[in-house]
Parts: sequence; structure tokens; C-alpha cells
Amino acid sequence: MTLLDGKATADAIKEEIAIIVSDIINRGGKRPHLAAILVGEDGASKTYVAHKESSCQKVGFDSTVLRLPSEITQESLLNEIEKINSNPQIDGIIVQLPLPKHIDEQKVIEAIDPAKDVDGFHPVNVGKMVSGLPSFVSATPAGIIELLKRYNIETSGKHCVIIGRSNIVGRPMANLLSQKSNPGDCTVTVCHSRTRDIKKHTLEADIIVAALGMPGFLKGDMVKDGAVVIDVGITRVEADTKSGFRLIGDVDFNEVAPKCSFITPVPGGVGPMTIISLLKNTLKASGN
Amino acid sequence: MTLLDGKATADAIKEEIAIIVSDIINRGGKRPHLAAILVGEDGASKTYVAHKESSCQKVGFDSTVLRLPSEITQESLLNEIEKINSNPQIDGIIVQLPLPKHIDEQKVIEAIDPAKDVDGFHPVNVGKMVSGLPSFVSATPAGIIELLKRYNIETSGKHCVIIGRSNIVGRPMANLLSQKSNPGDCTVTVCHSRTRDIKKHTLEADIIVAALGMPGFLKGDMVKDGAVVIDVGITRVEADTKSGFRLIGDVDFNEVAPKCSFITPVPGGVGPMTIISLLKNTLKASGN
Repeated sequence: MTLLDGKATADAIKEEIAIIVSDIINRGGKRPHLAAILVGEDGASKTYVAHKESSCQKVGFDSTVLRLPSEITQESLLNEIEKINSNPQIDGIIVQLPLPKHIDEQKVIEAIDPAKDVDGFHPVNVGKMVSGLPSFVSATPAGIIELLKRYNIETSGKHCVIIGRSNIVGRPMANLLSQKSNPGDCTVTVCHSRTRDIKKHTLEADIIVAALGMPGFLKGDMVKDGAVVIDVGITRVEADTKSGFRLIGDVDFNEVAPKCSFITPVPGGVGPMTIISLLKNTLKASGN
Repeated sequence: MTLLDGKATADAIKEEIAIIVSDIINRGGKRPHLAAILVGEDGASKTYVAHKESSCQKVGFDSTVLRLPSEITQESLLNEIEKINSNPQIDGIIVQLPLPKHIDEQKVIEAIDPAKDVDGFHPVNVGKMVSGLPSFVSATPAGIIELLKRYNIETSGKHCVIIGRSNIVGRPMANLLSQKSNPGDCTVTVCHSRTRDIKKHTLEADIIVAALGMPGFLKGDMVKDGAVVIDVGITRVEADTKSGFRLIGDVDFNEVAPKCSFITPVPGGVGPMTIISLLKNTLKASGN
């Protein structure tokens, strides 16, 4: 069993990006610049944005965080996005979700210039991704694809079972892995809450992507020997740790890992790879 | 075994649409108006466009066909689309594909105002469809969904195997049938040319959508008893008929039909339903 070490892979890729940025600067170019919009005071959102900011610094990107009060009107927020859209200094924009309830998230997502939409949530980018056209792919699916690539995991002709059909993980993963590409060319099955016998499907899978958000859902008797298991779950459960919680994946690691050829740990698997996708998308948005 | 009669269903829906249009006119409203752009002299394209025009007339829509020479430049074609985009009299636009080789089809598709894109090919509409948001769904997938609906075929929790991953049929079908909707809520498997043992998958399917374009591909021994089979294939093969050809589906009907609970014939199954989707999308684009 080989551990798919997202942390180490992400660190290595950050170094690669930092070298590319140095090279851009040496050639007299402009640093890629990511702008993040943070609305309100949600603790988790602040942590995520701070993490994105520090990752930008680490690779040499410029970053701006626009902090807006939770009472901001939808109109004012859309105006702020429009300003960033038309600011040639800024290459990529993300709006940290969730937004306060009085704001229509979909409207906000669609207000972002698709060419600066490094989160890949704009319908234009979703549509192009699904159709196999050049696009910004959202962070988690792109991070998983990158991890499969870095570990040279053969996907062509393999049967991949995806548990979960969310718009941010399950669905894009299904579309990406079934495409004529590498990684890709999988026979893909999407299972979800309405699937009658998930175990019947997972037992046939060469690759399993667990993205349903139920801690420890995938048990040892649901996985065939030699499977590749990607655990996208990150549920916070209370624990006697410094932070007061522990992150638990959708996979019962102790039971499943011994049967796997490859498996991602939680934490340190898919999680660290997501920030990499955001950095790579910003680099691409900057024309590099 | 029940035949899914696309022809009769399409005729019934056309009558329903005609009644809605009469009602619009009686209330002093404007007839829905579809514009089709036909570039060049391709025989099949001319036939398709003529068929769309006559269907519009049948339900009381206005229709305009803009015939352009095959030598038209991409720029001129884009200008024509822009004119129709900004013409408030026209509700829906389709550009008959394929286009001459010197024209970038994707550019043309993306030039159409998404609000008038009744073929549902614009990335914005693809992205919204995939995300389960209101959108124009392209003709063949929408026609199949409508047929399942009209025959009250239970899809929730069923295992649907789709053969083919094209952007116009297989991929949208997979996304639609796996959504939390009715028809929908299927466990969906997408098979394609790289799938190792298609028969193994189809034998487990409650619903099979054959959309690979290989005449007679799906044989009797690949289907379990009671399956619902949707045949999307329409390959022209030479035959001793008036037209000189016959349409052959992807399903070996004689072998497969006796095992099915429901099956679409070819012709007269999925084919006639596609025009219905175009009419329904145009009605919707007109604000009705």
C-alpha cells in the first residue's frame, strides 16, 4: 500500500510554482495576483482565506484580500466584483463561500469574469470543463487529478466509482475521469443517497472517490484488493486535541488501507492539493 | 414489452404547444420566433433545417431561415449572429452544424446569446444544466427525459448504463439522470470505447441508453430481463428503399426487444422527440 501524500506533493508543486514566478520576474514580467473577497466574520472562512493568502506569498504571488461587512448589499458586492473584473492588475478572483443568506451566491458567481474565475465555479467554466474544453477546473477535482498524475496512477479503462454527486466534487470528478484524457478514460459510476446498494458498486471499483461527507462511511468489506481510494471527506469531530477537533475522512482508513494499492490519508491527502489548483489556475489566468 | 413511441408522443406534444401558442395569440401576445442559420449546401443540413421550419409552422411559431454561402467568413457569420442576438423579435437561434472547416464552431456557439441558445450548446447552458440550474438542455437528452416522463418510467434508484460519452448525448444524459430530479436520481455508469467489458456493465443495468453510433451494437445477451432500453443511434445504411437508405439504431431490436419492459424503436423513438425539445426551448425563450 502506497500513501498518496498530498502534503508532500503540494509542497513540491509550490516550489515548482515559486521557480516559475522567479523566472517571470527575472524576465521583467508581472507577479500573478489573486484577489479574495471575504464577506463577514465567519471563523472558518477567515482561516481558509488566510491560508490562501499565505500560500500566495509562499510562491511569490501578489494577493489582496477585500474584507467586506456581512451587511453588505448584493448590489454593492456585485459592484466590488465588477471593479476587480476590470482591474488589469488582478489576474484571479475568488469569493469565499458561504455568503450571508441575503445574497444570491449564484448571482455572485456569475458576476465574476470567467477569465478571472480561478475557483472554476462560473457556468462557463463548468460547461467548458464538462465538454473537455480549456477551462478553470475547481480546486478539489483538479487537485485529485493532479495527485493521480503525480503518482502515475493508470486510469485508462479502469472502473471508477464516485460516491457523491455534489457540484463541487462528485459531478466534476465524474466528468473529468470519463473524458478522453490522462488521467481519464475511466468507466465511471456515480453513486449517491438514492443508490440502492453502494457496496455492490464499490466492490467492483478499481478506483473509489469517496465524497459524500459521512465520516468513516467506506468500510473494508466494501473495497476490493488493490483498489485506489481517494478520500475527499473532511468532517470536523470534537476531540481532545489542541484545536478541540479532529478531521475525519469518508473512509475508514484502518480497515480500508491494508486492501489498497494507493490511498489518500485524511488529513494530508486531498486537502493540501486543493490550494495547489487555485495557485495553478491563478498562474494560468495571469497568462503564464 | 411496451414500445416507447416517440412519434406519437411528439405529435401529442406538438398539439399541446399549438394550443399554448393559440392561447398566447388570443391574449394579444407575440408568436415565439425561431431563427435558423444554414451555412452552405449540405443536403442533410438542409433537410434538418426544413424539418425544423415545418415543425415551427405546425405549432404556430414564426420561423426564419438565414441561408448563408459556404464561403462566408467567420467574422461575417459572427456579425449575423450578433444581429439576431440583438433583434427583439427573435426568441431562439440555432446554427445548423456542421459548419465549413474554415469556421471555428466553438466560437460560433459561444457567440450566441445564452438566453436565445435553444440548442443548449453554449457553455453557460451546459454548465447550468450540469449544475442542475435552469437552462436550455440540448435536443436529444431533453427529448429522452421527456419520453421517460411521458411514459411514467420510474428512474429513482435505478442503475442506468450509458454507452457513449459524447458532449451532445452521453455526457448530458449522465449528468441529467444522476441529478436529484424526476426523471433522475439514477445511479449512472458511463461506458465508452475504453471500457473493458461493456457487457458486464449493461447486464447489470435497469436502464440502458445506447448512444455510441455503432449499428446493432447492443445484443440480446447484453441486456437483463425487464430492462428499459433507449436507442439513440441513427446510422444511415444503404437499402433497397425509396430513399436508398434505412436508419439503423445502436440496438439489435429483434434480439433485445423481447427482454425489455420498454424500448424505443428506430426510427420513431428518440428521433422525433428531439424536435420537441427545440420547440419547447423556443417557447421558453419567448418567455412563455
